Amino acid sequence: MELYIVSDIGGTQMRVAAYETLNLELVSQKRIPTQVKGELATDRLIALITEISSGHTIKSIAVAAPGFLDPDKGIIYEAPNIRGWVNLPLRQILTDAFAVPVYLVNDANAAALGEWKFGAGIGHSHVLYLTISTGIGSGVIIDNHLLLGQRGLAAEFGHVTILPDGPMCGCGHRGHIEALSSGTAILNYVTEQLKEGRTSSLAAILNLTGKDISQAAIAGDALANEAYLRAGKYLGIALANFLHMLNPSIVILGGGVSQVGELLLAPMRSSLEESLLSPEYLIGLEITQAKLGDDVGLKGALALLVTEVVQVNPGCYS
Amino acid sequence: MELYIVSDIGGTQMRVAAYETLNLELVSQKRIPTQVKGELATDRLIALITEISSGHTIKSIAVAAPGFLDPDKGIIYEAPNIRGWVNLPLRQILTDAFAVPVYLVNDANAAALGEWKFGAGIGHSHVLYLTISTGIGSGVIIDNHLLLGQRGLAAEFGHVTILPDGPMCGCGHRGHIEALSSGTAILNYVTEQLKEGRTSSLAAILNLTGKDISQAAIAGDALANEAYLRAGKYLGIALANFLHMLNPSIVILGGGVSQVGELLLAPMRSSLEESLLSPEYLIGLEITQAKLGDDVGLKGALALLVTEVVQVNPGCYS
Repeated sequence: MELYIVSDIGGTQMRVAAYETLNLELVSQKRIPTQVKGELATDRLIALITEISSGHTIKSIAVAAPGFLDPDKGIIYEAPNIRGWVNLPLRQILTDAFAVPVYLVNDANAAALGEWKFGAGIGHSHVLYLTISTGIGSGVIIDNHLLLGQRGLAAEFGHVTILPDGPMCGCGHRGHIEALSSGTAILNYVTEQLKEGRTSSLAAILNLTGKDISQAAIAGDALANEAYLRAGKYLGIALANFLHMLNPSIVILGGGVSQVGELLLAPMRSSLEESLLSPEYLIGLEITQAKLGDDVGLKGALALLVTEVVQVNPGCYS
Repeated sequence: MELYIVSDIGGTQMRVAAYETLNLELVSQKRIPTQVKGELATDRLIALITEISSGHTIKSIAVAAPGFLDPDKGIIYEAPNIRGWVNLPLRQILTDAFAVPVYLVNDANAAALGEWKFGAGIGHSHVLYLTISTGIGSGVIIDNHLLLGQRGLAAEFGHVTILPDGPMCGCGHRGHIEALSSGTAILNYVTEQLKEGRTSSLAAILNLTGKDISQAAIAGDALANEAYLRAGKYLGIALANFLHMLNPSIVILGGGVSQVGELLLAPMRSSLEESLLSPEYLIGLEITQAKLGDDVGLKGALALLVTEVVQVNPGCYS
């Protein structure tokens, strides 16, 4: 059987799946820890691909990976959560091992491709995908092409400044939308307000989590509600910016934080509508939740292999 | 002779030019006032095209126009400075008159196309064009395609919020980059500061202009310098945002205000470098001034006709 091999690599786990090239049926899927003491993550990946493809022929491989990478050169510049993955020529390593075309894609871009080809974005040509969880990731489809930029560094929509003197982002800059509307931002805001002596049912909780905050908000806690209102307000401002720039036909919201629903989405919509240059931007626009779950990265890597719209160099594999 | 006819329509003047289709040589060019009492601007345009193409065959027509328009439908939703141009089916009007393919393009997008094909952007595939004058306009080329979005409303980079409670923009929203770094923004800032009693050589000048401010800045006036520093600072923050989103290989700055040079560009670069997620975004990036002058809109309309990269519907002309 001829297989497409796809992988989604995170700091904690790496997933590999094999799909039949003829009908895209899932043949096999497995996940293992990414980092094990005394082993190279790349060796673990090669072993897992070898195991999953055993007895079959590999047609091509696509790998979704976190951090800065150049899909054209096949190099991961830096994957912050994976030890030693700095200037890693991952495509070369895999083409050396398997002698087939290998493609690299950033994990948020992979998720956008997955939702566009197999999820909420089917049929759309202009897609903005935002994943709101610990951080804010994004991927963009323009005219049925993945937005990569000259070196594959595009679509970092989480790291745009909305409030120049705002809170510190995980990246070390102030006022990014990730520092205002991500799960971390919501948690930091509540923690700060509690430190300043705000009254809230959350004051009694040790090791506060996002779930505590959403439950408190639903139960009517003023601080918890304010935290979502604030996050939603800035998300709406950012979204207006993105619509002015891209005029997409669909915005797909993924990630755990967006699943709190109206707590975040109602203030987001209200702020979006206030911030728009013209209601024309809402015509033909759908704002919706992501459809694919944990496998979105694998589905995105598969989308990369089955569509010819992404013009990347598969590397030398002869 | 077979001609490409191009037009650039502004609130004050409309320009029309004819180029030979074989070698793109300019055959004829003329400009007239757009709005004359008792005449329809569309009738004036038809008459001017008829005059310029007299005795020759028209192959196709491209028109650059201001405001919101849908290049695919051929409709100008609203051209704020031209009386009566609301929901104007300009493409249909011109195809009815000339029975050739007609293309519409937003004026800032036309300028981006012009600089990309015939100006500073030659050879680049990922271009961000910003024109900084009274307002801030923009056009974007991604993978050799003009960024239009689902309804042609994309690339309004002047209207992104950088400072939510900042100064009012001409569009009625607060804190857009146009309200912080355009010529109008610089003038408004100086005027406000003078009203608040700031000492400056500019206090003596009636009907202050941008030229007064740039001359005062060069002569060492503190307020004038501060106005450019402030505009440059926010422009750098906005530019970092745009690089994170698009990862272009060239940023082309057009418009009168950008011609003040280092007064604005030095603080812009410094703030850009501080605001970037990673110096990787500067690799392979050129930041440069626009090369084409007043004819950039005409050249852009011509670029639209001679490249096949812009997929727009030319309308029914049979």
